[in-house]
Amino acid sequence: MPPPESHPGSRSVSCRRRSGDGVSAANDVIVVEEPLELRVDGTAVATVMRTPGSDRHLALGFLLTEGWISTAADVGALSLCVRQQTSREDASVASSTRDTEEDEENVVDLRAPSGVLLRSPADAPRRLPATSSCGVCGKRTINEVLARTPLERSGTAGPNPSCIDAGDWKISDSTLLRMPEKLREKQQIFRTTGALHAAGIFTDSGELLHLEEDVGRHNAVDKVIGWAFLEGRLPLRRHALQVSGRVSFEIVQKTYAAGIPFLSGVSGVSSLAVDLAERAGVTVVGFLRGDSFTVYTHADRIFVA
Amino acid sequence: MPPPESHPGSRSVSCRRRSGDGVSAANDVIVVEEPLELRVDGTAVATVMRTPGSDRHLALGFLLTEGWISTAADVGALSLCVRQQTSREDASVASSTRDTEEDEENVVDLRAPSGVLLRSPADAPRRLPATSSCGVCGKRTINEVLARTPLERSGTAGPNPSCIDAGDWKISDSTLLRMPEKLREKQQIFRTTGALHAAGIFTDSGELLHLEEDVGRHNAVDKVIGWAFLEGRLPLRRHALQVSGRVSFEIVQKTYAAGIPFLSGVSGVSSLAVDLAERAGVTVVGFLRGDSFTVYTHADRIFVA
Repeated sequence: MPPPESHPGSRSVSCRRRSGDGVSAANDVIVVEEPLELRVDGTAVATVMRTPGSDRHLALGFLLTEGWISTAADVGALSLCVRQQTSREDASVASSTRDTEEDEENVVDLRAPSGVLLRSPADAPRRLPATSSCGVCGKRTINEVLARTPLERSGTAGPNPSCIDAGDWKISDSTLLRMPEKLREKQQIFRTTGALHAAGIFTDSGELLHLEEDVGRHNAVDKVIGWAFLEGRLPLRRHALQVSGRVSFEIVQKTYAAGIPFLSGVSGVSSLAVDLAERAGVTVVGFLRGDSFTVYTHADRIFVA
Repeated sequence: MPPPESHPGSRSVSCRRRSGDGVSAANDVIVVEEPLELRVDGTAVATVMRTPGSDRHLALGFLLTEGWISTAADVGALSLCVRQQTSREDASVASSTRDTEEDEENVVDLRAPSGVLLRSPADAPRRLPATSSCGVCGKRTINEVLARTPLERSGTAGPNPSCIDAGDWKISDSTLLRMPEKLREKQQIFRTTGALHAAGIFTDSGELLHLEEDVGRHNAVDKVIGWAFLEGRLPLRRHALQVSGRVSFEIVQKTYAAGIPFLSGVSGVSSLAVDLAERAGVTVVGFLRGDSFTVYTHADRIFVA
């Protein structure tokens, strides 16, 4: 197997792994997730969360299949946005070098040939004009999420106002290990179609409070959070959220917005999911299957019992 | 097992199933996927593809986690949009009764309490005002996709201008059965992270022309299509697209936009994916694993060998 760090699409992280013979410190390789801003003639039309690599392919495929372009005659130039030297120097005052480097790789701008006006597809109105600075990066995206979510109002903020404070709330490893099966047992639609995502809210004793299913991963999470909102139960600061699929950035973002301190999934996690969870005070568990799981952040909320 | 038709989230379809002992006609239960338009004070802010059921939960959870609302004080009323009697009568002139019924269930409108102005989150500008008619339905969404994709220009249109005509192109069942393993062998990032989607373009003899990986299902498909666009290979009318995950509406839509007549996945398919594929002339195969698969549309492009 090649050294995993050699590919820009993966990253090594330290974690804690539970297997049949106890919990131990370990290293894991996780998939990289970073935003990419897509622009048409300098105007941002979409931001997608993607794994870096083949960014020009992604931009062209997206713009083609979403109806912005249809033939090669629609494409004048396709560029990765690079900062002007002066603005790069300006930016480096306020941000780290790494921040600046990330920025440069996270914007693709498609310029139409001279005389060609690319029109917005009918069902995808253009967004506001982008600022002149080069777009987006994971760190900035995380800062925006932390800044806009009003944890103070919901009483979940601790000494760090953007970090969920669940007090002494903990969950045992044995309770955790039983959650996927409990979720699966209640998945009505999955049982007949084999093609559905689920999200469930659990108590620390392993009781499944509410489950929702949907063809979309994000929708299943939105549905359980919407249910909790209607029930007046938000923030769910003493509960765990279990999902049937992968743990990506947006799933952590939604978990955080609901004030939930604990998120677990049966499959892998992304780099930006882990980075956000670390800052936001959310415990993230992946590969929760059989008698094992991997803890990526805030492992102190799990105890052995 | 309860009768599957009793749940609005699933639907029975006829299909052809290949297992160890040959291909035969069968029935399958697939998950329902339909658009839902979310409005805030009458203005459309998003359209999500979802499985019907718990629509109010979905709307509240989405609007909460995306930053539109944060407490119960932000919610005045939450309604499913129902047509005015007069406009319903108008609409029924042009569309079937079923169309009208679907429309009624596919819009949720959140009204702020009197005196409260709900603001758009900074990074999610409001879309154009919705028309006064009640939103969206699967049939209309399919018609829009078929209308906007210029197959005529790409030479893939047959007698029906919105249906892909791949001529006599076919693929054998044995070639098909080998595709998932070929895709998996080349998945560099998946091998180390266990958390990645892949999409690959195959010839009818089973050669893998190009593969891309991404944390997002749609991105992996956009990347391979963008690659083909750059290579001047579109439309890919004599090729198959293989994906590692589920086959949803948007995956079929992208396949169709690239002029690809054949789409297969290792997992399940959604109702709207099947409906679009039927109309667009795309063969859709699901549950392609081991020595079996299920064909949902245009099965005549597969031959036994």
